[in-house]
Amino acid sequence: MEGDHSETRGKVGDQVMQNPQALAALQDRLDNVSHTPSTIESLPKSVKRRVNALKQVQVRCAHLEAKFYEEVHELERKYAALYQPLFDKRKDVVSGAVEPTDEECEWHSDREEGEELADELKKKATIEEKKEEPAAEEDPKGIPEFWLTIFRNVDMLSDLLQEHDEPILKHLQDIKVKFSEPDQPMSFTLEFHFETNNFFKNTVLTKVYKMKSEPDSADPFSFEGPEIVDCEGCDIDWHKGKDVTVKTIKKKQKHKGRGTVRTITKQVPNDSFFNFFNPIKVSSDGEMDEDSELTLATDFEIGHFFRERVVPRAVLYFTGEALEDDDSFEEEELEEGEEEDNDEDGDEEEGDDDPKA
Amino acid sequence: MEGDHSETRGKVGDQVMQNPQALAALQDRLDNVSHTPSTIESLPKSVKRRVNALKQVQVRCAHLEAKFYEEVHELERKYAALYQPLFDKRKDVVSGAVEPTDEECEWHSDREEGEELADELKKKATIEEKKEEPAAEEDPKGIPEFWLTIFRNVDMLSDLLQEHDEPILKHLQDIKVKFSEPDQPMSFTLEFHFETNNFFKNTVLTKVYKMKSEPDSADPFSFEGPEIVDCEGCDIDWHKGKDVTVKTIKKKQKHKGRGTVRTITKQVPNDSFFNFFNPIKVSSDGEMDEDSELTLATDFEIGHFFRERVVPRAVLYFTGEALEDDDSFEEEELEEGEEEDNDEDGDEEEGDDDPKA
Repeated sequence: MEGDHSETRGKVGDQVMQNPQALAALQDRLDNVSHTPSTIESLPKSVKRRVNALKQVQVRCAHLEAKFYEEVHELERKYAALYQPLFDKRKDVVSGAVEPTDEECEWHSDREEGEELADELKKKATIEEKKEEPAAEEDPKGIPEFWLTIFRNVDMLSDLLQEHDEPILKHLQDIKVKFSEPDQPMSFTLEFHFETNNFFKNTVLTKVYKMKSEPDSADPFSFEGPEIVDCEGCDIDWHKGKDVTVKTIKKKQKHKGRGTVRTITKQVPNDSFFNFFNPIKVSSDGEMDEDSELTLATDFEIGHFFRERVVPRAVLYFTGEALEDDDSFEEEELEEGEEEDNDEDGDEEEGDDDPKA
Repeated sequence: MEGDHSETRGKVGDQVMQNPQALAALQDRLDNVSHTPSTIESLPKSVKRRVNALKQVQVRCAHLEAKFYEEVHELERKYAALYQPLFDKRKDVVSGAVEPTDEECEWHSDREEGEELADELKKKATIEEKKEEPAAEEDPKGIPEFWLTIFRNVDMLSDLLQEHDEPILKHLQDIKVKFSEPDQPMSFTLEFHFETNNFFKNTVLTKVYKMKSEPDSADPFSFEGPEIVDCEGCDIDWHKGKDVTVKTIKKKQKHKGRGTVRTITKQVPNDSFFNFFNPIKVSSDGEMDEDSELTLATDFEIGHFFRERVVPRAVLYFTGEALEDDDSFEEEELEEGEEEDNDEDGDEEEGDDDPKA
């Protein structure tokens, strides 16, 4: 095939080369096509040669860029340790392990100043009102259903959430991001920390996202920084009868010969957020059907979103403030043939954010 | 005004508070509105208080994030020094100061293997063809019009390019990016290096982009990393009659009393890329008309694009390879009332890229 192309081009090339006027005419025609990328083929050979030298230099730039990103990753790990006390504080307040002081709870907004005034007025009212307020129900521990609420608020996550997942996610206490060490291949891990519960024995469920952080030797210029290329879940040690990722169905079967009917039960996969911990594996030869590729791409997007947005800014997804910011997220590239979902509820779109000016 | 709102809410609040059943009914109704952000107002006061504590923690996170970005800037400056030898090599090849070796010019692609084969075949042809090739014209120095070609290829830049700018931009030898030092307010500078020419005396034209790298105390959660907030150009020392940013027009004026007519000449601004070095100043009170704001926003985008894309990957914009990558760029936010320009030529869109996974 390749031989054919070159021979054909060689033949045409010969004809043009043998006719300097034809060559000049061709060159003129090519030069006058303004507003299209410079046609490299029309450049003198000595110049093309130098352009190739610049491409070699550009490959070296791509490799240097990879080293830059390794150091950014290092910086992220360093800062993860600095954020940790703040996230630990968050965890303690959410779980109710620590009650924040009045000073720590000060937050000024127009709305809340109004509420504070209303509260003061109420205090001056009769004591009977206080007696009517039930004590324990009105005084929940920490911030109940903090992470579950975030899942409900964020479309990308609520898409994964099934009704049977909710009682389990009420036990989710914290989500942490861990970064790979310098000597390891680049990756990050999401840790979902659960309080003791009746559903599974694990206290932590993990999802590792593996990254490619070097330019592709076959296509070095497509390198735009590290990207997620694979992921790995974990085994969930479900208590008996509690595994929401499977369901039991009954099937009637008729014996072909005898005609008798029997009922068998079988387990089939069930939709659940907890399938997140049992992702499709990237096939070893890199070839996958389109559906699997899309599912995996969505999974990678979710992992990235947890890392970049949800974990760093959880309270803002709890209150909904961060959802209004989602105008700054890029639109998702859709596969050919797919239509965009137009939200009727609102304009909630999630995506990832890589702010580096 | 604020007082009014709170008093009204206080009245309604009183009525609800005095009636626990009404309160419960309200809470039920609010709880059943799924898929909307948790209505914080409906939370028990003790929980709201803890949410406010988390918001305070989030402000501390935002300030820590600002420090992270300062360190990323440091890293960028460190790497700018490491890229510099590669960009110096580029400059030398472009200007023709240094001729790359054959080894440095090796570049393998299907197309070029075909060309190499065609070349070999031609070498075996008669010597007469060689005599017909003019020597000096076919052997230009370096890569002529390297940066001008990039301006022509890239929509965002060709939009600024006027015909009278082109002879000047042929003298553009290099564009460098410099990063502010740690002790200075965060900024970056674009340096446009020109060879000696008949248009102006400067050898370097500069554009400084100043950045805001701290969260806004009034709105700490909108912080998404450093952003360009201002810019500063430089004076161009034009040779007489060569200033392309002004044009002279003649106007006929009739004397009101005497009726005699005279012709005056006046200088008015002229469209030119070189107005890039004389940008609109951000007004001191922060208030600007919409047009000026849009012009400035576009300027900032261009500055960012030079820094993030053009300077690091110039050869790929010269060949046009980087233009195909532009699918990954986000769509620009348009002002209300503006329509998108649909390119008929192709799908060339530029934007900025902040890759940090």
